[in-house]
Amino acid sequence: MAMKRLRISDIVKGTDMVGREAQVKGWVRTKRGSKNVAFIALNDGSCIHNLQIVVDTEKFDEELLKKITTGAAINVIGKLVESQGKGQSVEMVAEKIELYGVADPLTYPLQKKGHTMEFLREIAHLRPRTNTFGAVFRIRHNMAIAIHSFFHEKGFYYFHTPIITASDCEGAGQMFKVTTLDLDCPPRNDEGTIDFKHDFFGRHANLTVSGQLEGELAAMALGSIYTFGPTFRAENSNTPRHLAEFWMIEPEMAFYEIEDNMDLAEEFIKYLVKWALDHCADDIEFLNNMIDKELRSRLEFVLQHDFVRLGYTEGIKILEDAVAKGQKFEFPIYWGADLAAEHERYLVEQHFKRPVILTDYPKEIKSFYMKQNDDGKTVRAMDVLFPKIGEIIGGSQREEDYDKLLTRANEMGVPMDDIWWYMDTRKYGTAPHSGFGLGFERLLLFVTGMSNIRDVIPFPRTPNNADF
Amino acid sequence: MAMKRLRISDIVKGTDMVGREAQVKGWVRTKRGSKNVAFIALNDGSCIHNLQIVVDTEKFDEELLKKITTGAAINVIGKLVESQGKGQSVEMVAEKIELYGVADPLTYPLQKKGHTMEFLREIAHLRPRTNTFGAVFRIRHNMAIAIHSFFHEKGFYYFHTPIITASDCEGAGQMFKVTTLDLDCPPRNDEGTIDFKHDFFGRHANLTVSGQLEGELAAMALGSIYTFGPTFRAENSNTPRHLAEFWMIEPEMAFYEIEDNMDLAEEFIKYLVKWALDHCADDIEFLNNMIDKELRSRLEFVLQHDFVRLGYTEGIKILEDAVAKGQKFEFPIYWGADLAAEHERYLVEQHFKRPVILTDYPKEIKSFYMKQNDDGKTVRAMDVLFPKIGEIIGGSQREEDYDKLLTRANEMGVPMDDIWWYMDTRKYGTAPHSGFGLGFERLLLFVTGMSNIRDVIPFPRTPNNADF
Repeated sequence: MAMKRLRISDIVKGTDMVGREAQVKGWVRTKRGSKNVAFIALNDGSCIHNLQIVVDTEKFDEELLKKITTGAAINVIGKLVESQGKGQSVEMVAEKIELYGVADPLTYPLQKKGHTMEFLREIAHLRPRTNTFGAVFRIRHNMAIAIHSFFHEKGFYYFHTPIITASDCEGAGQMFKVTTLDLDCPPRNDEGTIDFKHDFFGRHANLTVSGQLEGELAAMALGSIYTFGPTFRAENSNTPRHLAEFWMIEPEMAFYEIEDNMDLAEEFIKYLVKWALDHCADDIEFLNNMIDKELRSRLEFVLQHDFVRLGYTEGIKILEDAVAKGQKFEFPIYWGADLAAEHERYLVEQHFKRPVILTDYPKEIKSFYMKQNDDGKTVRAMDVLFPKIGEIIGGSQREEDYDKLLTRANEMGVPMDDIWWYMDTRKYGTAPHSGFGLGFERLLLFVTGMSNIRDVIPFPRTPNNADF
Repeated sequence: MAMKRLRISDIVKGTDMVGREAQVKGWVRTKRGSKNVAFIALNDGSCIHNLQIVVDTEKFDEELLKKITTGAAINVIGKLVESQGKGQSVEMVAEKIELYGVADPLTYPLQKKGHTMEFLREIAHLRPRTNTFGAVFRIRHNMAIAIHSFFHEKGFYYFHTPIITASDCEGAGQMFKVTTLDLDCPPRNDEGTIDFKHDFFGRHANLTVSGQLEGELAAMALGSIYTFGPTFRAENSNTPRHLAEFWMIEPEMAFYEIEDNMDLAEEFIKYLVKWALDHCADDIEFLNNMIDKELRSRLEFVLQHDFVRLGYTEGIKILEDAVAKGQKFEFPIYWGADLAAEHERYLVEQHFKRPVILTDYPKEIKSFYMKQNDDGKTVRAMDVLFPKIGEIIGGSQREEDYDKLLTRANEMGVPMDDIWWYMDTRKYGTAPHSGFGLGFERLLLFVTGMSNIRDVIPFPRTPNNADF
């Protein structure tokens, strides 16, 4: 069987396929038929579509055909012909079939019947073989490619910030420790405390919660950079929105002020949504039909509207007015409060009916590195709020003034020992600069219509779960 | 100053630049000149080239000009004119200069004088501002983009395998532990041993040493996938070739046999090298001049030659013959021995004078998951050996037979509790499949000519070093 294999996506998309001799390899989704003819729906993971294989049962060994059940891997050579059935333009009449591997119907967990998302999470090693997860992970791939395309075209440089870090200025108490010490009997110094000098890095080390600070170092040298890597949060949150291990995209740009930052964020997210609609149409159609009937219209909605740009103070007024008119919120809302998802969604879904970029938050509820406004009360933060999911992007112009940054870091108890190198960028050749962070899985919730974040990452890490 | 900023790379590459009014922002590399005219070499990180800013000193405040020293950040508006000097086609006559941030000449570490690589590692937060590291990190970006391009064009899906893992079948003893337990006083069970039920994941967890096993799961569903993410090795090796945290690319392909795997590896690495020559010509020229005079010729050499494909057994014969003829090696060579870098380089640099793909290694020196040959002694491994750096890619066809895999796993002491999910892919719809791994930093050593792996990653993690 030396003929070149075709991927099913190439056959489905191809124009000149009818009449061709071809070889396909994949996994059986279903087999049905009568005594004389069998129909095998074959999927090879390249796309949501199956190729129908038509088998004249008389021409093949009965024992072979019996073993071809759901989940089995086969290699088929045959002729591509115009399809008789609907929903497909071409099917294959089998000439040779080779069985690579069976899937015992008594034990193979992915039989035809529907499965709950909870059950599929327990077999995360097999769930990419389902239509839903095949679609989700192909979209995940496409969003990653779109991210790199967007930034590469704009002259940004992809920059790898460290995963293991000795500084913990951002995530105190919510970081994973990384160590090679013998946990049962760690070395101790004279005072009886653990002697981290004997640890691999000669000091206490953690998993990063953000690449931003290191990203800023790079931006202040290369101009515009972005990170795209795993980040970690040791937060004991068992919710459909939290993961202990997730991927983040963090662009940082020298010479960008807050308006440039907002322009970039809006252009970026529209580029990604457009890419999904253009490149993942079949997978999105499947998810739109099976998971979330409003998925496609929500994606198109984002493309069609300018994002509202609104100051936090105005946003609070709108919410207070709504409360005065009878709107109920679980959490109280007042100037100085952090917005809960319900508030964010009210602004986006009910008040403006458009995505909103909320800016100029009270400095008390934001990080030490955000640029302080002249009012002495607010900072140049910007959060992009989306329908259904709330905050999808968080960012700010960064404080470039050494003294202001130092004062704020001290007020908020950030130890200088941890960030002397960060302070150096304000000491040597400082300049206005900005950046933001996009949680990759949050984006994927929006683009796939899935409702649990554990279902948009291949192997979710959550409290009490590090399987596979 | 509302004019749109141009990046220096756009000005240098642009055709229609002379006579244009423009705005540039960047960092001063040098300032020189006479009483009447000053020349500022400005770099904005977009490329290796500086833009020369010509300053008529009479038109500007003397105090301002004094502050414009090496490392300062400035914003310049001026007219682009044909350059009088050599090595540049265009320069800017300054009309307005805004100083963003100074860099005190008494303390700024990156003065004009040359610095050792060791010193620059100590200021890794500033070294991207040097020509050498700017070039290295732009090439690093380009290689990442090329990797995604290559696989995306071929219909491979980018797949994120987990960073935190509870299985340690591959890296026993060389893995970093990940924990949220109180190291000083961890919870213990009745027997007095540490009770990992109270740890974040309810069990012992580590940082991954490879995404391959999870990558295979994905390939057996999506067809062809690749990973590109950080991997970790808690190895106490202080060498120019080892990092505790590094990035790996691991493609895994269903329905690929060893020959397909070799074809892919050769095509892949040639694609990357060609991308570097096509897209990073200026940075490579700089590194060729300053770091490694043979860099460009070595890159072109790889493109121009088919890789030799050679069985391990033949390779050993060649090495034994060489020894018989007087060639000296530090390590003994015989059938069954693992090749040292000196042996690999002898084959590549002296015997064949071409890259070599060595295949069919003794099973004892390779992993449990490699496909066993019929001879009972060797496995379908393939290592790609390169001039100067030795092994750059390691891969194999994977054992798809459940019983053979089980036997070999048991012989090598791999606990089934750790890989039951991996075994499942051989139980349900198994098929021939293959894959390989490329160490990203090894690739970068080859493509940049740098000699220490700590100098091709922004913030290297090594024993006793997790700075920044």
